[in-house]
Amino acid sequence: MTPDALPDRSPLALAQALIRCPSVTPEEGGALDLLARLLEAAGFAVHRPRFSEPGTPDVENLFARIGTGGPALLFAGHTDVVPPGETGAWRHGPFDGTVADGLLYGRGAVDMKGGVACMLAAALDFVAASGPGFAGSIGFLITGDEEGPAVNGTVKLLDWARARGERFDHCLLGEPTNPSALGEMIKIGRRGSLTGKLTVHGRQGHVAYPHKAENPIPGLLRLASALCEQPIDGGTAHFDASNLAFTTIDVGNPATNVIPAEARAVFNIRFNESWTAETLGAEVRRRLDAAAGGSIRFTLDLPPSNAPAFLTQPDAFTDLVIAAIEAETGLRPVLSTTGGTSDARFIKDFCPVIEFGLVGETMHQTDECVAVADLERLTAIYRRLIASYFARP
Amino acid sequence: MTPDALPDRSPLALAQALIRCPSVTPEEGGALDLLARLLEAAGFAVHRPRFSEPGTPDVENLFARIGTGGPALLFAGHTDVVPPGETGAWRHGPFDGTVADGLLYGRGAVDMKGGVACMLAAALDFVAASGPGFAGSIGFLITGDEEGPAVNGTVKLLDWARARGERFDHCLLGEPTNPSALGEMIKIGRRGSLTGKLTVHGRQGHVAYPHKAENPIPGLLRLASALCEQPIDGGTAHFDASNLAFTTIDVGNPATNVIPAEARAVFNIRFNESWTAETLGAEVRRRLDAAAGGSIRFTLDLPPSNAPAFLTQPDAFTDLVIAAIEAETGLRPVLSTTGGTSDARFIKDFCPVIEFGLVGETMHQTDECVAVADLERLTAIYRRLIASYFARP
Ligand SMILES: [Zn+2]
Ligand SMILES: [Zn+2]
Repeated sequence: MTPDALPDRSPLALAQALIRCPSVTPEEGGALDLLARLLEAAGFAVHRPRFSEPGTPDVENLFARIGTGGPALLFAGHTDVVPPGETGAWRHGPFDGTVADGLLYGRGAVDMKGGVACMLAAALDFVAASGPGFAGSIGFLITGDEEGPAVNGTVKLLDWARARGERFDHCLLGEPTNPSALGEMIKIGRRGSLTGKLTVHGRQGHVAYPHKAENPIPGLLRLASALCEQPIDGGTAHFDASNLAFTTIDVGNPATNVIPAEARAVFNIRFNESWTAETLGAEVRRRLDAAAGGSIRFTLDLPPSNAPAFLTQPDAFTDLVIAAIEAETGLRPVLSTTGGTSDARFIKDFCPVIEFGLVGETMHQTDECVAVADLERLTAIYRRLIASYFARP
Repeated sequence: MTPDALPDRSPLALAQALIRCPSVTPEEGGALDLLARLLEAAGFAVHRPRFSEPGTPDVENLFARIGTGGPALLFAGHTDVVPPGETGAWRHGPFDGTVADGLLYGRGAVDMKGGVACMLAAALDFVAASGPGFAGSIGFLITGDEEGPAVNGTVKLLDWARARGERFDHCLLGEPTNPSALGEMIKIGRRGSLTGKLTVHGRQGHVAYPHKAENPIPGLLRLASALCEQPIDGGTAHFDASNLAFTTIDVGNPATNVIPAEARAVFNIRFNESWTAETLGAEVRRRLDAAAGGSIRFTLDLPPSNAPAFLTQPDAFTDLVIAAIEAETGLRPVLSTTGGTSDARFIKDFCPVIEFGLVGETMHQTDECVAVADLERLTAIYRRLIASYFARP
């Protein structure tokens, strides 16, 4: 890309241009520059806040808006991508943007440079067709820190926008939401995430004299089993049952003739809207106390969670998104809250947010790719959504 | 010590001289040289086999014998010691051999330079009194590799002695056997030791998509709990129940949002004479298979054990040892098989072996020490044993 050669506004050309920017988190890689130039050329006011914090890398971000009044629709996303892994294992270079057999290959093709390209193409089309004086506003909130520590990204960008007095009525976050076919699934909420560190304390000693020592491992087995065996809850109307997974147990005792002093485990709970991190932490502590029965000495460390469970109640905006999807794909999307966390957990405090994007099947994998036809259909869905949004009575 | 200044043959002087040799395993530190000169001066034929093996340090050892016929009594022990740890934390220097308030301080005071000093003092007394022409033989089998890997020590020294045609009728190993008072306990056997490595296999994945992954940790909890909860056996006439201890569990997964692919644990079983390492290994495998119920994929690795359980059936020799202890201490020793492993597990294939030595309370600790009175009483016990052994009809 030379500065004066902007890609045309087809979603394929935009997605290819973005993939060719090597924006492995936290690198900007030229991706936000490209968006800025495209948006400015279309009449958007573009801002490029850069945030920093000790211990984390500086991150570039982008905020753009056209229009000042309502209704105000915000598109959100990220241009940073996870590392490609072993580049040689890719069929086509992860930053080449090669099209083969109707598929566009590249890191970020679905997560989520492809989605950003579609929302951009749809918005630029709309603005070109209606002119900048349409009644309402369109915004873009794009971060370079979604795949990284998520410290200098969406959270700070929202604070920055709030401080400027920016207000939006609805947000569409373009993360890949469909498991296998475009149109299957909208995300209307996300489960929360709580990580706990469990340590059982014992007394070191020689295995030949177990009565002189106190092995913490049987106690850890007891407590961990208790947490694994009892379901956290039974799920809710919009959410699956909360799920607990032990992710590691580490004693680190190399001596086979020594009983260790301590055993440590880490678990993560993906929880639904029936809990906050605080009420769930208290419940875990209650269950551990019950399982310990006063005879197992343990410590439970619950670092503050920044991932609450949340639900965006389906409303008229959701209906617009569903209608656009149905019109373009013939599928009626499921309203889901499954999967991991996303930046929607931060945006929901700014305005109602729902998520709809590409098919996530290949995300974070070697040979990440998207059907070119899906790029075109998603653009058509976003275009239809924008048109109906601003056509509202 | 200059080469011509041999200590007198009081057990205190001998123990002090040995403690002053810094023979931290595998260093010889002058300890075996000292023994060699003392034994040669008393008429013993002394050999100093040095053994080596790739991957382990070379180790010096000592074998000495006076007399060629039977009855033949072997004293066994070691002069290597465990490291002193932080020298500054000791009340008296760990290699100074200081006597204070009736206690001799130093690394090896009870484990087992003190015991070696006592057996040496007793044997030298007997030889000096009876002359070298007594009917029978006394041997010393002293290794410098008991506290180390035990590869270039007693095992090879016994092979070496066997190859030379050395035969003994009984062996007294002078390890510290008494928990708190001299005379309390003889060891007539030792539990075996079996180490097992248990690995549960799963499939890595993201915690938000547990159905796409297979967490190995709940399976490990189930298998490990099954092994912990069911007693191995109920003990035997001379042995406690076998005891299983998990010594470590290690998953090593730093990512709290990732379900790991594998979970590993190590356990050690101290087992009694109702098992061999092979039968016990098979039983553990059977129990794991039952607990896994076909639904947990696991691997059990059982490296060959060099520590079988063994029992030296009490006999006339045991009675002589008991009688000597009772005469000198007024205590009737318990015949025990408790505690860790010792080189007796190798010697038992060479000749019947029992163990009796000092009070082990401070062994391997800072301020390891022995009562000077205990050194004198243990020497008297050994002296009485030798006298009665060679007085046998
Ligand atoms: Zn993403
Ligand atoms: Zn020892």
